[in-house]
Amino acid sequence: MVGIIMGSTSDLPVMEQAATFLQSMEIPFELTIISAHRTPERMFRYAKIAKERGIKVIIAGAGGAAHLPGMVASCTTLPVVGVPILSSNSIDGWDSILSILQMPSGIPVATVALNGATNAGILAAKIIGANDENISKKLEAYQQSLTDKVLNGVEEVNTRYPNTFEK
Amino acid sequence: MVGIIMGSTSDLPVMEQAATFLQSMEIPFELTIISAHRTPERMFRYAKIAKERGIKVIIAGAGGAAHLPGMVASCTTLPVVGVPILSSNSIDGWDSILSILQMPSGIPVATVALNGATNAGILAAKIIGANDENISKKLEAYQQSLTDKVLNGVEEVNTRYPNTFEK
Amino acid sequence: MVGIIMGSTSDLPVMEQAATFLQSMEIPFELTIISAHRTPERMFRYAKIAKERGIKVIIAGAGGAAHLPGMVASCTTLPVVGVPILSSNSIDGWDSILSILQMPSGIPVATVALNGATNAGILAAKIIGANDENISKKLEAYQQSLTDKVLNGVEEVNTRYPNTFEK
Amino acid sequence: MVGIIMGSTSDLPVMEQAATFLQSMEIPFELTIISAHRTPERMFRYAKIAKERGIKVIIAGAGGAAHLPGMVASCTTLPVVGVPILSSNSIDGWDSILSILQMPSGIPVATVALNGATNAGILAAKIIGANDENISKKLEAYQQSLTDKVLNGVEEVNTRYPNTFEK
Amino acid sequence: MVGIIMGSTSDLPVMEQAATFLQSMEIPFELTIISAHRTPERMFRYAKIAKERGIKVIIAGAGGAAHLPGMVASCTTLPVVGVPILSSNSIDGWDSILSILQMPSGIPVATVALNGATNAGILAAKIIGANDENISKKLEAYQQSLTDKVLNGVEEVNTRYPNTFEK
Amino acid sequence: MVGIIMGSTSDLPVMEQAATFLQSMEIPFELTIISAHRTPERMFRYAKIAKERGIKVIIAGAGGAAHLPGMVASCTTLPVVGVPILSSNSIDGWDSILSILQMPSGIPVATVALNGATNAGILAAKIIGANDENISKKLEAYQQSLTDKVLNGVEEVNTRYPNTFEK
Amino acid sequence: MVGIIMGSTSDLPVMEQAATFLQSMEIPFELTIISAHRTPERMFRYAKIAKERGIKVIIAGAGGAAHLPGMVASCTTLPVVGVPILSSNSIDGWDSILSILQMPSGIPVATVALNGATNAGILAAKIIGANDENISKKLEAYQQSLTDKVLNGVEEVNTRYPNTFEK
Amino acid sequence: MVGIIMGSTSDLPVMEQAATFLQSMEIPFELTIISAHRTPERMFRYAKIAKERGIKVIIAGAGGAAHLPGMVASCTTLPVVGVPILSSNSIDGWDSILSILQMPSGIPVATVALNGATNAGILAAKIIGANDENISKKLEAYQQSLTDKVLNGVEEVNTRYPNTFEK
Repeated sequence: MVGIIMGSTSDLPVMEQAATFLQSMEIPFELTIISAHRTPERMFRYAKIAKERGIKVIIAGAGGAAHLPGMVASCTTLPVVGVPILSSNSIDGWDSILSILQMPSGIPVATVALNGATNAGILAAKIIGANDENISKKLEAYQQSLTDKVLNGVEEVNTRYPNTFEK
Repeated sequence: MVGIIMGSTSDLPVMEQAATFLQSMEIPFELTIISAHRTPERMFRYAKIAKERGIKVIIAGAGGAAHLPGMVASCTTLPVVGVPILSSNSIDGWDSILSILQMPSGIPVATVALNGATNAGILAAKIIGANDENISKKLEAYQQSLTDKVLNGVEEVNTRYPNTFEK
Repeated sequence: MVGIIMGSTSDLPVMEQAATFLQSMEIPFELTIISAHRTPERMFRYAKIAKERGIKVIIAGAGGAAHLPGMVASCTTLPVVGVPILSSNSIDGWDSILSILQMPSGIPVATVALNGATNAGILAAKIIGANDENISKKLEAYQQSLTDKVLNGVEEVNTRYPNTFEK
Repeated sequence: MVGIIMGSTSDLPVMEQAATFLQSMEIPFELTIISAHRTPERMFRYAKIAKERGIKVIIAGAGGAAHLPGMVASCTTLPVVGVPILSSNSIDGWDSILSILQMPSGIPVATVALNGATNAGILAAKIIGANDENISKKLEAYQQSLTDKVLNGVEEVNTRYPNTFEK
Repeated sequence: MVGIIMGSTSDLPVMEQAATFLQSMEIPFELTIISAHRTPERMFRYAKIAKERGIKVIIAGAGGAAHLPGMVASCTTLPVVGVPILSSNSIDGWDSILSILQMPSGIPVATVALNGATNAGILAAKIIGANDENISKKLEAYQQSLTDKVLNGVEEVNTRYPNTFEK
Repeated sequence: MVGIIMGSTSDLPVMEQAATFLQSMEIPFELTIISAHRTPERMFRYAKIAKERGIKVIIAGAGGAAHLPGMVASCTTLPVVGVPILSSNSIDGWDSILSILQMPSGIPVATVALNGATNAGILAAKIIGANDENISKKLEAYQQSLTDKVLNGVEEVNTRYPNTFEK
Repeated sequence: MVGIIMGSTSDLPVMEQAATFLQSMEIPFELTIISAHRTPERMFRYAKIAKERGIKVIIAGAGGAAHLPGMVASCTTLPVVGVPILSSNSIDGWDSILSILQMPSGIPVATVALNGATNAGILAAKIIGANDENISKKLEAYQQSLTDKVLNGVEEVNTRYPNTFEK
Repeated sequence: MVGIIMGSTSDLPVMEQAATFLQSMEIPFELTIISAHRTPERMFRYAKIAKERGIKVIIAGAGGAAHLPGMVASCTTLPVVGVPILSSNSIDGWDSILSILQMPSGIPVATVALNGATNAGILAAKIIGANDENISKKLEAYQQSLTDKVLNGVEEVNTRYPNTFEK
């Protein structure tokens, strides 16, 4: 249902975080390597038949002059989530962010934060959840778990810095 | 079905472009002003009941230290599309882009290009189209219209710079 | 009297420096974790009742798309001091600085330098000291101690690079 | 009670906004020109005797390599609010922002947004209001007026884009 | 012999400067519109058959998230010269520069300055001139004309600011 | 046939990558140290006689205020490929990139990515290959090898994340 | 005694300000056009014989990839003052600033602010004044005139905003 | 003859490089710690009597919001060389560079590269050498030694990459 693609195996440690999140939501996904610049035909084929293969959202991650998310978006009507990746020889990630974010009118990419693959997974789940009450419920539980984690931190910190504000 | 919100009436000229696109797709939407910093309670209420009011996607635009998209995203499981707006006294738009894009893990905002409200509208349509074949078809026609517009430009330029490459 | 809040326990090593300074001034403070995006209701409640709980100044630190200081400022008439924090996956701190500094007209945040939690503590003390001669005296002594520390450095360096300029 | 200073008469159109706000709050202020680089002795004298002259908060605005706010802060225990000003030949304001914001540990400047003189005035009022219930009440009314202004915008926009979300 | 392509007719005023230079060198060229995102198939076809159509160098200009030069380079062994274009809603040109310059290892784009289409034309001529003594001679004459133009400026300025340095 | 020059022996680890690529293509090259600022006469002599010495393309790498590529380009009609190098005390590479990229009209430098010496070697090969079918064939094989390497990565990743998309 | 050079006649409106200042100090100067990239030999000749021609300080201004100040500095033992100029197609002046400022160890350029030609003239006067009591006296008078000008501004502003701080 | 000052003992490892260079030129210098923000009176006294103490050039280094060079320049007619220092919590050095470089008209600081203390020493020597033939001769020898060092690198590299270009 969700297609996760990235330009290089070196992007895997970041991009796997999207897979991990989708697994936790029990949303089916596939993950593969597709390079805009080294396998352009593979990229086009992937983008063009993604919808008929049953994919609902594509998550694409790339570093440097990151053309993968935008080029995939140009060949499909599916929503494409772009993950800027901080690769070696990147200029602090600016190249990747701007190449993905600043798409021309007509071809949007839903860009998330630098290395934000978990957020890309969550965004894919939110997109699917917009029409799937089951996923939507799981997302609610997930957001509650974030709250709980902070509240645990609150308690932990309270032991060192007691305060009167209700938890 | 789509909620378009923005921090100030001065953002309307940019944000209306999202409305215009949705209208062209015949996707119902509502549009209103919600300021994160001047009407925080209105913002919270809006985000919290958006889903039960039938909204599927929220488009939020803001300039400067742009907290609206991220704060709305923190109170709903709906996908939120963020539009950085180049407002006066902005620092070339960097403040708005980074305040919207660089959300922490757990709370994504689908960020589009600076002033990219049309793209926000398209992204909303793509999100809805992921489960609506009718919208999806319209998006295909829209993308074809972009192609046609470029091809018209090709012909226009060919009259001044004839070339042998097939149209 | 001073409320120190931060988005995550990972911000504690930086934000504790504000606490340390206030302790040295014998200014009472409380410190807790409040996440704008993960505990938005806790944040609102905190900001809204801070004044009636006797707080005079709020110090809020956050990294990345740092909405905590500005959102708290939107719900209170108390002065809010914002500390941009250089977190992992931040873009050299620019995201945090700009999200805190570039607040729209009407809702200021008193922003200090990147990771400048000690300075946030000092600023809180200066704010309280504006109406408290005792604190003001302590601040004078503190500023003198900074001078003395530099003059110690002068002497130390003079042993290696003697010069005729009076200490 | 509030001292407003700036490096040059060319900064007056921006810095007057602080004065205007303080007038609306009926907070007494003085306003004068003090250049860090062209009248350094005047600057020192001002900073040193500000407190004994009855000033509670200093607002200092400057452009380019903006040393005025930080240098004044180094000679007084009063809180200093810094306003970065976008002057001609500035590099998009970055020079002014960074010269004011990035103060070393020990000497904070409460920095507001680029050209944010109104916010500097509000911050000064908040600092005074931390110990003055009358000012604090007026600030509450001011914040309510901001809300009201947005709600007026809501109504105005509703005439063109009717929606069902309660005002 | 030289193919000049650009993403949109709005890029024509900049990109025509490359054509003008090539005309002055009597180097044959063609010029057309090819959008990476709106006519991706046209782009691929162009890049793939450029060499067999007799093209020796491709000049590609684009603004914003500028994928055209890099994507064309990925589908041909011809040298591709990239021209970053400062388009509306660009972030001072940084997006275009970084999307073209920061190509991954294996797929270079010969990037020139922002809006540097004349330089792209010169670079194409230099590439062809590396194997064509006739073009090389013309380039020498062109470089001499630049020198002459400066020396004319020298004389003009000398009338106002006489000096003893030989022309 | 290709001249590789760099400002300092400390640039060798980066610049050797150009040599390595040219060796793999069996394109003859020479490599030496030429500093724009420390051996300006050597630089001028090199640039002026490069063409008559049989050089077709010059690759020049430098860090910081990187004047070598542009100054060499000003003294020859040969194409010059510039490699920005991330040296110590560089400001994230921006100084080197902008000093090489932003050449004035008339004197282009074909700039590649930060530390992109391999790409400089490829670009030199592409320039030579524009008139040499043998090199052109080798470049095709090289580009195919990049594709193959990605496809190997695809298989490797498929073992962990099986998917139905054809290789 | 002072040599003022610039890359192009278009730099004259900025660079003349250095001449104007030197005239006001009665310091002899010459002014001419020298382009690093279009007249490299003229540049070298100028730099090499500047000292024997009696020049004590060289002021060099340039925009974009600004190599003139650094290259001149590499061929003379005279102090070189560099003026970054904001030219068209510059990227907000960053290219010019970094190309002039970030010189490698061994070859300094005394860089002043963007478009800071008046300051370059003053710096040249200060350099000469370090060994010339007459110039030094004039500089003192000049600095006093700056003070006086601010004090005039003080009086002017006092008429609108009376205050009790001594002039 | 040369005064070297810096804001903190932590700047000593960088600033000592200026001292080392001056020692190698046998130019007398003094070195001490002066903090603009922690010892403002010491700074003023130093700047004001520097000339009468026999100092000809002041070298001032500082990091972050670096006010020392500019403030010293405002109180003396001597030339001031500014060294931006990359300190901890600096934003990649931008804060220090811009606070030193972007001085307003009237008060120049001769800025060198980030951490460029050796270049500051050389610049001081050039300034003194402008009126001292002995120093000027030593600078010539120094510049020759830089050339020789590069030529040694040439030979070293030639052993691995033999080439026909004359040394």
